[in-house]
Amino acid sequence: MSADDQNTEHTAQMKEVQAAHREKMSAKKEADKGLFLLLTGDGKGKSSSAFGSIIRALGWGHDVGVVQYVKGNWKTGERQFFQKFPDLVTWHTMGQGFTWDTQDREKDIEAARAAWDISAKMLASGEYDLVVLDELNIVLRYDYLPVEEVLAGLMARHSRTSVMVTGRDAKDELRAEADLVTEMTPIKHPFDSGIKAKRGIDY
Amino acid sequence: MSADDQNTEHTAQMKEVQAAHREKMSAKKEADKGLFLLLTGDGKGKSSSAFGSIIRALGWGHDVGVVQYVKGNWKTGERQFFQKFPDLVTWHTMGQGFTWDTQDREKDIEAARAAWDISAKMLASGEYDLVVLDELNIVLRYDYLPVEEVLAGLMARHSRTSVMVTGRDAKDELRAEADLVTEMTPIKHPFDSGIKAKRGIDY
Repeated sequence: MSADDQNTEHTAQMKEVQAAHREKMSAKKEADKGLFLLLTGDGKGKSSSAFGSIIRALGWGHDVGVVQYVKGNWKTGERQFFQKFPDLVTWHTMGQGFTWDTQDREKDIEAARAAWDISAKMLASGEYDLVVLDELNIVLRYDYLPVEEVLAGLMARHSRTSVMVTGRDAKDELRAEADLVTEMTPIKHPFDSGIKAKRGIDY
Repeated sequence: MSADDQNTEHTAQMKEVQAAHREKMSAKKEADKGLFLLLTGDGKGKSSSAFGSIIRALGWGHDVGVVQYVKGNWKTGERQFFQKFPDLVTWHTMGQGFTWDTQDREKDIEAARAAWDISAKMLASGEYDLVVLDELNIVLRYDYLPVEEVLAGLMARHSRTSVMVTGRDAKDELRAEADLVTEMTPIKHPFDSGIKAKRGIDY
């Protein structure tokens, strides 16, 4: 096939793709309320995807809230970044750090409860277009909060509010109700070849 | 089991988890050079994860460059956000928009070539801790650029520079050389139930 023929064929193909895309899109409707988005799986990309979505939302002038459930005392790039722009995002952290460092189940449960109470208020308030509940799945996995209560709070969010929940091992109850579920699947990971988590990439 | 017993058992378990975690970590070594990270699959979260990684990197004061390969004329939240802070990130776009809109293979190839030339310079320059090549996989899938040349450029990056490549259908040649591959797997997606892409979430 000559280069000219290839280009002509390409143009025809792309016209078909464009027409199919337009037809598919015209049949779709705008989401009439905020969505419930669930990012889970063992692969890298859950929390970073949530922080990227925050950037998108802020780019459109949306109001954003964040509650971080398990990285309370970690120094992370994301928190340092948003601390430089405190007017952009309402930011809460659970404050106790990772569970294997606290080693105190009752304190963890208290901290999870306090973080969830803030989250539930943010969700219901109507003040946010996007609320990110980072690593909430971990807290649910350890049964620090009743899944029924959390699910009810997620579903009772204000109609304007999308909520994004991250963390491995998402509960079936959440998977069933979410509008979107992405499983981040690790095909290959530098941890496996003995490389440490990297600043500016992993945290 | 009483609440006290449960707490004691929990503390013992967490001590074990902590010890195992520390042992695992002490055996690992710091990455002595930037990593090659590949985010692919049909699920939501590839580009947003890359933009979240940019936030992490910026939080640590790192230098970041971005080339967007296929969203040239789209108005996206991420670009609007970073345009407000032009000193934070060096940002290039391929400029032609999505391929089924241009319908001109030669122009697409020219645009891909120009975008890659910029990318290769950024990678080799030593001026960046992180370079994001957003949707480069799409351009490779259409064979707009020779995969051997692109792979060589990725591997010839400056030792300080991590590179993150996003887009569906990553080529096997890239998968083989990447330090990290995450496959974003769509378990459930609102597009499937007829809901349009949502501003501040999907773009």
